[in-house]
Amino acid sequence: MAQTAVDADALTIGGVTFGSRLIMGTGGAPNLEVLEQALSASGTELTTVAMRRLDPTTQGSVLSVLARLGIRVLPNTAGCFTAGEAVLTARLAREALGTDWVKLEVIADERTLLPDPVELLDAAETLVDDGFVVLPYTNDDPVLARKLEDVGCAAVMPLGSPIGSGLGIRNPHNFQLITERATVPVILDAGAGTASDVALAMELGCAAVMLASAVTRAQRPALMAESMRHAVTAGRLAHRAGRIPRRHHALASSPEEGLATLDPERPAF
Amino acid sequence: MAQTAVDADALTIGGVTFGSRLIMGTGGAPNLEVLEQALSASGTELTTVAMRRLDPTTQGSVLSVLARLGIRVLPNTAGCFTAGEAVLTARLAREALGTDWVKLEVIADERTLLPDPVELLDAAETLVDDGFVVLPYTNDDPVLARKLEDVGCAAVMPLGSPIGSGLGIRNPHNFQLITERATVPVILDAGAGTASDVALAMELGCAAVMLASAVTRAQRPALMAESMRHAVTAGRLAHRAGRIPRRHHALASSPEEGLATLDPERPAF
Amino acid sequence: MAQTAVDADALTIGGVTFGSRLIMGTGGAPNLEVLEQALSASGTELTTVAMRRLDPTTQGSVLSVLARLGIRVLPNTAGCFTAGEAVLTARLAREALGTDWVKLEVIADERTLLPDPVELLDAAETLVDDGFVVLPYTNDDPVLARKLEDVGCAAVMPLGSPIGSGLGIRNPHNFQLITERATVPVILDAGAGTASDVALAMELGCAAVMLASAVTRAQRPALMAESMRHAVTAGRLAHRAGRIPRRHHALASSPEEGLATLDPERPAF
Amino acid sequence: MAQTAVDADALTIGGVTFGSRLIMGTGGAPNLEVLEQALSASGTELTTVAMRRLDPTTQGSVLSVLARLGIRVLPNTAGCFTAGEAVLTARLAREALGTDWVKLEVIADERTLLPDPVELLDAAETLVDDGFVVLPYTNDDPVLARKLEDVGCAAVMPLGSPIGSGLGIRNPHNFQLITERATVPVILDAGAGTASDVALAMELGCAAVMLASAVTRAQRPALMAESMRHAVTAGRLAHRAGRIPRRHHALASSPEEGLATLDPERPAF
Repeated sequence: MAQTAVDADALTIGGVTFGSRLIMGTGGAPNLEVLEQALSASGTELTTVAMRRLDPTTQGSVLSVLARLGIRVLPNTAGCFTAGEAVLTARLAREALGTDWVKLEVIADERTLLPDPVELLDAAETLVDDGFVVLPYTNDDPVLARKLEDVGCAAVMPLGSPIGSGLGIRNPHNFQLITERATVPVILDAGAGTASDVALAMELGCAAVMLASAVTRAQRPALMAESMRHAVTAGRLAHRAGRIPRRHHALASSPEEGLATLDPERPAF
Repeated sequence: MAQTAVDADALTIGGVTFGSRLIMGTGGAPNLEVLEQALSASGTELTTVAMRRLDPTTQGSVLSVLARLGIRVLPNTAGCFTAGEAVLTARLAREALGTDWVKLEVIADERTLLPDPVELLDAAETLVDDGFVVLPYTNDDPVLARKLEDVGCAAVMPLGSPIGSGLGIRNPHNFQLITERATVPVILDAGAGTASDVALAMELGCAAVMLASAVTRAQRPALMAESMRHAVTAGRLAHRAGRIPRRHHALASSPEEGLATLDPERPAF
Repeated sequence: MAQTAVDADALTIGGVTFGSRLIMGTGGAPNLEVLEQALSASGTELTTVAMRRLDPTTQGSVLSVLARLGIRVLPNTAGCFTAGEAVLTARLAREALGTDWVKLEVIADERTLLPDPVELLDAAETLVDDGFVVLPYTNDDPVLARKLEDVGCAAVMPLGSPIGSGLGIRNPHNFQLITERATVPVILDAGAGTASDVALAMELGCAAVMLASAVTRAQRPALMAESMRHAVTAGRLAHRAGRIPRRHHALASSPEEGLATLDPERPAF
Repeated sequence: MAQTAVDADALTIGGVTFGSRLIMGTGGAPNLEVLEQALSASGTELTTVAMRRLDPTTQGSVLSVLARLGIRVLPNTAGCFTAGEAVLTARLAREALGTDWVKLEVIADERTLLPDPVELLDAAETLVDDGFVVLPYTNDDPVLARKLEDVGCAAVMPLGSPIGSGLGIRNPHNFQLITERATVPVILDAGAGTASDVALAMELGCAAVMLASAVTRAQRPALMAESMRHAVTAGRLAHRAGRIPRRHHALASSPEEGLATLDPERPAF
């Protein structure tokens, strides 16, 4: 039954359907073997690769791992600080990898790694016009999320907290404001530190979660990847199941009215 | 691999080993069919039954459901306001159900359904001396948890928030103080509203989670039960996997040092 | 106007009226001069003194400071681990200081400094019967708070978080449950770290706040004492003023209906 | 001493010094009399007036109130949705009121009242170039705050939560990121609901707080205004005083070492 429920609830981005709602990154793993085990345990079907890394050998190997696991590659523009750099990087990626999908990152500075809202929107518009399927890494501003959707992005990927901070979703209220109006998938990107962060994102209406450091830098990456796979499923199912309302006072699950008398001769059942 | 990891990590209470870390209650379900579907989807192996309910037919049926699903019965003393009532109820349960396990509840009043710490400790001591395996529902006070352990309880079951409130774990700090010192299983009892609450409990070091209303009163109980099954697993694995530390500032998963030049002739990989 | 509002809102404990809602402790200050400046800046009219400290010279000096500032002395039973010790200490204090007021502390262990609920309640009952005005330091359990009130305590002093932790009020929900039912003053005791913690306590319905480390161990104790004086007033006034409800969405303070046309010839006012 | 400490800590914006760190708005008050009482009780020296309201009589009266109380007028551009509208409104205000100060608001939509980051930055740059002292209402994005400062704004005014929501500061972490880098005053704008929100803002390093609904829509506006005056002072002093660090475990304010023996003949002091 569980299987069916999940199967009937696939994620669609840019016309492509995914069985997993976990998008993985490849940065931070101590080595390729650990990375492969983690990706495998996560069940991911879509994984980002940074296009601006130097070492061709390593990158090539990452691509081999993804190919071996049958995971779709999502090139990202990590390390770009202007719209121009990001657009160029996306075009190089398209040429090199034969995909018009791009996770768009335009960073304001190296210290915060926060997105530059102006450059980001500019790059998103250019890339959409150029035929790309654009998944932008954005801050949690509901207005910017709306603008990115309006220029044609296939999803919006707000951050929960700064990249690698593990602080979770600092502002769940903003996530609610974003997901209640968005008509494209909203994907938590950055900040998740542990399973409950991921479950919360899905409960708030996110369609998927993107993770890198939380898994690759955990003490036991493969075990954390497996945890995150369950967390995404748990959060998604909870979202669909309709949680109980919050109450200030208690509500008995076993009503107190009509309690049995404590008569040892007559047990209550 | 996932399977093995979970299997090797069984929960033991009072010498009995359980594959599932989800303890369920039976109150709140609209009918027995829904209850059975939810219990089945939850994967629970241990479920409480209130001993002081009036309707023998219903109660009998609940027991039939548990028997059919192969779930161990954990009688509780819901509705008892004094140590004397609770001890008597536990003894009736032992006689009627042939089990010396008891989930001990001694409530201070009907409005808050909060445990009475003095009566609870008194009843716990009496029942342990009488050979019971006692699992007490307690507040989140680390001192009371320690006292309950000291008198011989097989587990301690602190509340996250009032029964049926769905407010989650109001005081994670107290849960940390409890789990870091306890030598018996700590089980979240009461307050969980959704999957992320359950995952958090396990991350904080709880050995299991007890749920009733969060599942039985959800809009779709079986779906929520399935969610909770994943949430417990997610939280447990995250606890074991060792999460990344929280950082005030960002940490790049893809280090910025050594970025490739944006040379269209030489892609970076 | 401000003066009047505050004056008309005095705090009464055990039949004694206080103009200040800040109760201070004397522990943690680097020296007596700093302590005196801090107490003076705080505006406190009631300050605790630990009865079980060794050095008679120091203690004597603390009493001199309080006498000089016209502050009422509230002896406490810090360092007592059983009801018996606490009762004896309170009686010694009454004899030595000529006051039947006592801040009752019965600690479970030195590591957590959390109160022992059973011993505390026992001591409270004994001391009330013996004619004391008892102000017990308790955990944040609404049930225990009620029991302490029921045995005749003149106030209840729940902790926000462990002594000296500076973690603020970890469980505001419990404070609400306590203050909405209590008929004696509820006083935040332990855990406050900064001004917003104190304001929050008062907003939640506390009648007063007790502080020691937050002031005496701050980098500039007198400045922090002055801050806390304002924080107590701010929180108390906010509680009385009736805050706006929380809303999920925005509500314009300047309604958008009927906006002026942007006609440079006709400014809108 | 208190007086001196506060006096020596004046706020400077655009070269003008203020004794009060509370900026008030005029929207939401039931009538002018209540507004005047609230403004008076708040101690504010700078108050916004919406330039695009229709009723000339009312607006005129608001200006009379401010003149009578000696409060500097800060015209705002509430109700503007584009940079063009906001710039025009600011210029009209300058002409009409003879001030080149403007609280710049460029709203994305009427439902969220959230700022439009792109239009805002555009308008800010234009107005700064035109000689205005610009105080922009912005989201809590540290990157946008930096950009606004870089184009020459005299302060940045991030929102804690949506206007009129009373949800306080939803993301204190972002406020820390903003205040630790800003070289112009950071002023909390929007979202404060009660005194502890205001104290927290100041503790996080804000230089001032802007309030409207929290005061004007409170049940007793003048009392809440007085509360807020104390809250700003409390938070500012706490920020300067240097709070104690947060600790996971307790720290005794009265050290347990060297406790007196309980010898009734020898009190400890």
